[in-house]
Amino acid sequence: VSAADLVQRVIANEPRAVARALRLVDDRMPGTHELLRALWPHTGRATVIGVTGNPGAGKSTLCDRMIGLYRARGDRVGVIAVDPSSPLSGGAILGDRLRMSSHALDEGVFIRSLATRGELGGLSRTSRDAIRVLDASGHAVVIVETVGVGQDEIEIASTAHSTLVVTTPGLGDEVQALKAGLLECADVFAVNKADREGADAAIRDLELMISLGDASVLALSRQNGSGWSVPIIRCVATRTEGVAEVVAALDRHRQWLDTHPAGLARRRKRLEQEVRSSLRDELVDTAMRDLGPHLNAAVDDIEARRVDPYEATSNLIMRFMRAGS
Amino acid sequence: VSAADLVQRVIANEPRAVARALRLVDDRMPGTHELLRALWPHTGRATVIGVTGNPGAGKSTLCDRMIGLYRARGDRVGVIAVDPSSPLSGGAILGDRLRMSSHALDEGVFIRSLATRGELGGLSRTSRDAIRVLDASGHAVVIVETVGVGQDEIEIASTAHSTLVVTTPGLGDEVQALKAGLLECADVFAVNKADREGADAAIRDLELMISLGDASVLALSRQNGSGWSVPIIRCVATRTEGVAEVVAALDRHRQWLDTHPAGLARRRKRLEQEVRSSLRDELVDTAMRDLGPHLNAAVDDIEARRVDPYEATSNLIMRFMRAGS
Repeated sequence: VSAADLVQRVIANEPRAVARALRLVDDRMPGTHELLRALWPHTGRATVIGVTGNPGAGKSTLCDRMIGLYRARGDRVGVIAVDPSSPLSGGAILGDRLRMSSHALDEGVFIRSLATRGELGGLSRTSRDAIRVLDASGHAVVIVETVGVGQDEIEIASTAHSTLVVTTPGLGDEVQALKAGLLECADVFAVNKADREGADAAIRDLELMISLGDASVLALSRQNGSGWSVPIIRCVATRTEGVAEVVAALDRHRQWLDTHPAGLARRRKRLEQEVRSSLRDELVDTAMRDLGPHLNAAVDDIEARRVDPYEATSNLIMRFMRAGS
Repeated sequence: VSAADLVQRVIANEPRAVARALRLVDDRMPGTHELLRALWPHTGRATVIGVTGNPGAGKSTLCDRMIGLYRARGDRVGVIAVDPSSPLSGGAILGDRLRMSSHALDEGVFIRSLATRGELGGLSRTSRDAIRVLDASGHAVVIVETVGVGQDEIEIASTAHSTLVVTTPGLGDEVQALKAGLLECADVFAVNKADREGADAAIRDLELMISLGDASVLALSRQNGSGWSVPIIRCVATRTEGVAEVVAALDRHRQWLDTHPAGLARRRKRLEQEVRSSLRDELVDTAMRDLGPHLNAAVDDIEARRVDPYEATSNLIMRFMRAGS
């Protein structure tokens, strides 16, 4: 298959071509860069929704039900599932993915799992590029599902237009603490399994945390208090209760992004973040490639205590920059 | 306080100077670089132990009991507690830290919490530098406690000599999946709350996962099957049962690192990783500082679709490299 051919077939949403493009992007095979550049003019139409939350909150089930509603209104849906677990955990991950299997035979739904990469930042780049592929192939909605606990999950969530944070009543103390990190990136909150005991308390907690957040410096960067207040929606995903409300809240958030000055500023900020991330990734790639043997020599010198790591690093950076002249 | 004075007082382990140095490093204040360079000749003596595991596994309690044993043999102990949660979660975090409070009045124990930074990679750099400060001030053991779920927690764990993964019987499916990501970085496993139902099953699971791991490609990078097999130790931290065995296993692992060829290779790999991480962090800092206004112009161009983000990124990198000539 020629490169130009692949581009045409991705744009035409041929499932095998889309799968191939995603594999290319995931493995960063030669040609990835050219493919992404060629797809770029065809992107910018999808709404990207980040779905994150504690392990066990029922994210996959909620996504499954949301997909059903998007499909019912004719939207094609792409799903990128990101898991911070290794290839070894294949069993558990597969089990998880199966919960979305009600759409496995629907050609309007494309589900793809990404594994965690060794290199820091690798995963958010891959997911960013995978979003572009699914956008270019005409998926009106792209859902990126992560387990929202680490720094890169939060970074991935921030590449979305809207971030849905899923939580559930009655989690332990330490698990609750994790949630605080998610608070900052939530545009919409879903309290899933809301038929369980403790749902009212969980919602009160969230309301309190959001009101604290509104008063804090953090809120400024999120443009809260500027025409968007984070809704908290009760749902029971397994019974498809409250799911339409979640979808409606996300629709409203997308509209806010497109029309409200604060929403437009937020979109700009998101793009800026994306450019920074790409720049960081490409820069590190280029430097590691260019410096190869010098890096090893520097490690030798530090190991023998001939130089301290700070000086060694400065020297490497100077060498890299001089190479560009 | 002059810079040279601060260095001398850190080396003399004056608590206020150590706290000041850690604050400097955490906030990356001017002078951080010079301080770290001046401390470097005094580092390299501490054993760094990464402690990670699922939320709720009882890491803090286990650390508290381990500190008791290290103190009993005369070792000074530094603790760096890393939490992926925001300043908003102060309450929960404080509660967690309080579990280590039995050593709050002991001058031989220095406990410091680090918050998560916005910028990717920032946290692992801060923890790396904080380890150096605690090392230079004569702490024989430095414990770095993380919630082991994200990519950067795993990166932080990899800066340690030895990584202790704490798990517990009877966690849910999805939480178990998270554990798989931890498997690769475990040098010692502690099954805490081993008096609970399901402990035998949890240990069998781990044994199976480790034996699968030994057979996999992943094991090669960890130098398993080379004189070190990951021990699984039962403990009940709240009753100080099995804690001495955990400490003994970590001692044995440190000895393996210092004497076995595979252990030495592993230490070298760890240093190399550290140099790569520093290089990446410094490079990104330098580039973002140098490129400032050009970055904004690039975002403008992409927003107006005058240029695609891939070309914009390449242009920025070329500009940065030319600036070094």
